[in-house]
Amino acid sequence: MQTLTVGLGARSYPIHIGSGLLDRAELMQQHVPRSRVAIVTNSTVAPLYLEKLQQILQSVAISSVYVILPDGEEYKNAATLNLIYDALLKNRCERTTPLVALGGGVIGDMTGYAAATYLRGVPFIQIPTTLLAQVDSSVGGKTGINHPLGKNMIGAFYQPKLVLADTDTLNTLPDNELAAGISEVIKYGLIRDLPFFEWLEQNVAKLLARDTEALQYAIARSCQNKAEVVEADERECGERALLNLGHTFGHAIESGMGYGNWLHGEGVAAGTIMAADLSQRMGWISTHDAERIRNLLERARLPVVAPDLGTDKYLELMGLDKKVEGGKMRFVLLKEIGRAVVQSDVPQQLLLQTLQACTHG
Amino acid sequence: MQTLTVGLGARSYPIHIGSGLLDRAELMQQHVPRSRVAIVTNSTVAPLYLEKLQQILQSVAISSVYVILPDGEEYKNAATLNLIYDALLKNRCERTTPLVALGGGVIGDMTGYAAATYLRGVPFIQIPTTLLAQVDSSVGGKTGINHPLGKNMIGAFYQPKLVLADTDTLNTLPDNELAAGISEVIKYGLIRDLPFFEWLEQNVAKLLARDTEALQYAIARSCQNKAEVVEADERECGERALLNLGHTFGHAIESGMGYGNWLHGEGVAAGTIMAADLSQRMGWISTHDAERIRNLLERARLPVVAPDLGTDKYLELMGLDKKVEGGKMRFVLLKEIGRAVVQSDVPQQLLLQTLQACTHG
Repeated sequence: MQTLTVGLGARSYPIHIGSGLLDRAELMQQHVPRSRVAIVTNSTVAPLYLEKLQQILQSVAISSVYVILPDGEEYKNAATLNLIYDALLKNRCERTTPLVALGGGVIGDMTGYAAATYLRGVPFIQIPTTLLAQVDSSVGGKTGINHPLGKNMIGAFYQPKLVLADTDTLNTLPDNELAAGISEVIKYGLIRDLPFFEWLEQNVAKLLARDTEALQYAIARSCQNKAEVVEADERECGERALLNLGHTFGHAIESGMGYGNWLHGEGVAAGTIMAADLSQRMGWISTHDAERIRNLLERARLPVVAPDLGTDKYLELMGLDKKVEGGKMRFVLLKEIGRAVVQSDVPQQLLLQTLQACTHG
Repeated sequence: MQTLTVGLGARSYPIHIGSGLLDRAELMQQHVPRSRVAIVTNSTVAPLYLEKLQQILQSVAISSVYVILPDGEEYKNAATLNLIYDALLKNRCERTTPLVALGGGVIGDMTGYAAATYLRGVPFIQIPTTLLAQVDSSVGGKTGINHPLGKNMIGAFYQPKLVLADTDTLNTLPDNELAAGISEVIKYGLIRDLPFFEWLEQNVAKLLARDTEALQYAIARSCQNKAEVVEADERECGERALLNLGHTFGHAIESGMGYGNWLHGEGVAAGTIMAADLSQRMGWISTHDAERIRNLLERARLPVVAPDLGTDKYLELMGLDKKVEGGKMRFVLLKEIGRAVVQSDVPQQLLLQTLQACTHG
C-alpha cells in the first residue's frame, strides 16, 4: 500500500493506494464517528462489492444503509441526486453520518455533491472502483451533476476525509473503461511530467494487462501530480485549469454525442489529440511530438479521431463551457510534452482547421 | 449608514445598514469584476425595486440579467432553484458573474445556494428587503432549499461578498412580515444580550412604526450579535446552535401547517414561547421572565400560541430536524434572559407538558 496526503490545510486527507484495501476496515474506522455510514453505489458495482463492504464494516461494528443508483453518465442529474437525498432523509442520516461513494466517477461526483449539500455538509469517504475515478476524481474535491444545458454545471468544491483506491477493483473493470482511465493518466504526463510520459510509453501494455504493480505506480504518480496542482490552486483560479487539457473539446464531444455514449476518458483522448493539433498549429509542439501523443493514445486503445459533429456544433458546445472567461474562449494547449499552458488568444482560423482536421481520420 | 464586518478570514465581508443604500452604486461596483451581474428576485419585490436597481447599476456601466421567481416559502425547492440555473446558463453567466439576491430570506437562501453551486461557486451579493432577511440570513452564510421531507435539508455554507441592508425597503413590507422580523431580533436579546432585550422592551413600538433610526439600531445590533456567534463557529459545531432558539419547535410548526402558511418568524415566535416554557419547567427561568418574553412577543404582534398539531405530530416533525445528534433530540433553552444553552437531556415528560400547554392558549 502506498499513501499520499493531499495537503489542503484543515481539509487535508489521505489517499491509500494498493491491493486488498477493501478488506482493511481499520482504514475507514477512524473516519466514522458514530459507527454508521450511508453507502452510495450503482447497479453495476453493487453486485460486485456492496455486500463485501458492508460485511467488512460490520466486522468493526459499523452499520450501514445504502442506496443503489442506476449506472451511467446519463443519470448524473438532479433526479438521481434526489434519490440519494431521499434515502438519507428516510434513514434519518445525520450530520455525523459519512457518505461512502462506492463506484466510478459518476458515483463519486454525485455522492460528493450530496455530501456537500445534505444538511449543508456531511463527511465524505471515497472508494473509487474505476481507474478514471482513482486518478482523477479522488483528488481535488470537484463534485457535481450535469444540467441539460451543460456538463458539471452544478456542483461544489468539497474534499473527502479519505480515499481508498483498491487496485483489485480494477480486475472487474471493462477494457474500454480501463483505457478511458489511462487517457487521464497520460494527461498528467503531457501537462507537467515528461518522465512519466516516457514511463507510460514504455509501460502502457502493462497497464492494459492490469499488472498490479504498474497500476499502483501509475495511480500514485497521477494522484501525486494532481495533488501538487490542486494544493497550489484549490478553487481553479490558475494552474488547476491545466488539468483540463483535452477537456474543452472532450466535453463538447461527450455532450454532442449525448452523455453516456462516449466515455469521459474517450472524449478526453480525442480532445487531447485536438489540443495537440491546435498546439502544433500555434507553432509550439512539433509534428513528431504530436505523433508521439497520438501513438501513445492509440496504443492505449483510445479513440484518436473526434466525431464529426460539424464545426458550428463544436463552437456552440464549447461556448457554454465553464472555462469561458469574459466572453473569450480559453484553451489548454501544449508548449511541449510535459508543459501545458492556458491560452486565450487562439486565432479562430487555426481552431477551425483543428476541428476540420481532427474529425476526419 | 453603519457598516459591520463579518470576520471570517478570507471570507470576511461588509454589511452596510442604513437609509438610501440602493441608490449608492459605488458600494456594489467594487464587487462586480466584469461589469455584469445576474439579479434574482421574486414577483412581489420585482415591481418595487428591480428597475431601480438595474438603473443604478447601469449608471456605473454594470449590465444585468435577471430572473423573477414566484414568491413564497412553498417555492423554496429544487424546481424553483432550477429556474435560476436555467436563467444563468441561458444568459451564459460565467464564474465571475455575481448573483445578486434582491428580496427576503427565501430569495437570499435560494440565490446563495445557486451561487454556491453554479459552476461550483460564483460571487454572491445580498440585498435583503425584509427585516427578517436583514437580521438573519445576511449573516452566517447559510443557504439552501427545502425538501419534501424537511426544511433546509439541502444547502451549503456560502458567504456573500457584500450585504446591503437598505432600511427604506422596509417601508413596503407588510405588517405581519415586519413583526416576523422582530421575532428574530428579540431572539438575539434572549440568547446573549440582556441589555438589547431591555432596549426592545422600551422600543418595540418604534420598530412597529418603522422608525428609521430604531430600525437601523436594531438591525445593526442583531447583525453584530449574529456575527460574533458565527465568527466563533462558522459551521455550527457549537455556539452557533444557540441561534436556533425557538427554531426546533418553529420548524415543526411551519412544516406541520404546510410551508408558507405560517411565516418563519411567526413559527419562531410561538416556538420561542415553547422553548421558554420548557426552560421554566427545567427549573431555569422564572415565571416572571417567561411572562416578560411572552409580553414582548405579544406586543410585537406575534403569535404566542402554537397550533395544536397533536403531540405525536410534533415529535415526528422534530425527529427529522437537522439538530438531532446521535439519535438524541437537542433543545436550545434559556438559563435566563440573555443566556441560552444547548440541552440534550430533556425529560420526555416535560417536553410533553410543554407541547400540551403551549398549543392551548
